Amino acid sequence: MPLAKDVVKFGTFVVTNQVFHLTRLSFAVVNLKPLLPGHVLVSPRRVVPRFNDLSAAEVQDLFLTVQRVSRMVERVFNASSLNIAIQDGADAGQSVPHVHAHIIPRKKDDLEEKGGTDAIYEMMEGEEGDLNRQLRAKEKAAEADVAEDQTRGHFPAVDNDSRKPRSDEEMLKEAEWLAEEIAKDEQAQGSRTEDSQ
Amino acid sequence: MPLAKDVVKFGTFVVTNQVFHLTRLSFAVVNLKPLLPGHVLVSPRRVVPRFNDLSAAEVQDLFLTVQRVSRMVERVFNASSLNIAIQDGADAGQSVPHVHAHIIPRKKDDLEEKGGTDAIYEMMEGEEGDLNRQLRAKEKAAEADVAEDQTRGHFPAVDNDSRKPRSDEEMLKEAEWLAEEIAKDEQAQGSRTEDSQ
Repeated sequence: MPLAKDVVKFGTFVVTNQVFHLTRLSFAVVNLKPLLPGHVLVSPRRVVPRFNDLSAAEVQDLFLTVQRVSRMVERVFNASSLNIAIQDGADAGQSVPHVHAHIIPRKKDDLEEKGGTDAIYEMMEGEEGDLNRQLRAKEKAAEADVAEDQTRGHFPAVDNDSRKPRSDEEMLKEAEWLAEEIAKDEQAQGSRTEDSQ
Repeated sequence: MPLAKDVVKFGTFVVTNQVFHLTRLSFAVVNLKPLLPGHVLVSPRRVVPRFNDLSAAEVQDLFLTVQRVSRMVERVFNASSLNIAIQDGADAGQSVPHVHAHIIPRKKDDLEEKGGTDAIYEMMEGEEGDLNRQLRAKEKAAEADVAEDQTRGHFPAVDNDSRKPRSDEEMLKEAEWLAEEIAKDEQAQGSRTEDSQ
């Protein structure tokens, strides 16, 4: 069962099953095609394109959520560092016009074979990081009622980086797991739970 | 005259002359070698390496400052988008162990000749983005009492991207200009000034 009671939208896309953390003004989702294990997104609940569109309350809630989520994913994915990045506007590489912070757990030499530490950014900016394209392909597949395991063949362009888009079930399972893990942190801290829904 | 009355430190480096905005818990500085015009950094005043080290008050102040500064640099550098990025830990490419958000104004096709939109990240991660190395070189030059215009020849490794490190005077001048510009925004908004010093 999804964590969110209402429909949660990322841009025009319904991502309800991917939500693993909700606060009054922000939500966190797992990715259809994470660039590295534990790659997640945090967004304001209000669909606005630019960081400057956010109210002070939204900015504060968003980054307290980023901190809480980044602490958790670093722990559960056994990482040692994190990339936290916002592509704020199309000319900075933003593909879905809804403010979102990428959180990507990092380990020593985790992208050695892809060209080193900085390769994550090329991946984020390139086709394999094009969230809009991936989510659109997923929507089209659902509309056409294509069986999940047949989906790949229909969208070769999306898959030419050879990562398989994950099923709704797989994402929901990860979202439930991460929701449990973040609850552990909150219990351990004994605070901040007033933001949660 | 520098904006900051006290010495401001970025990691172990004194950056007082580079400060153009100060709040109770955060500061913003111009760069010794900006990757693009208007590339600035925002940091918590407390010298801590990881995002998770920040208190809730520090997180909130930091990102309200990032929003205020990013709005201003986008305006004064005639940009259309922004990259906002934190390399949180060494394995994510962090060179100075003091939390800092890069804010980089972007324009359409601004990095066309360097390989496109995503080239900014390679630049950030590569030698030309190695803040620690650049600031160390600057410190050594100052210690040796080397005349500013002779500095370049002594540190060829730092300069092999052919960008000249800027002088203290040049950075101070830009910092004063940006301080004036952010004051304009604050007057226009008629609020948020309670954070400023």
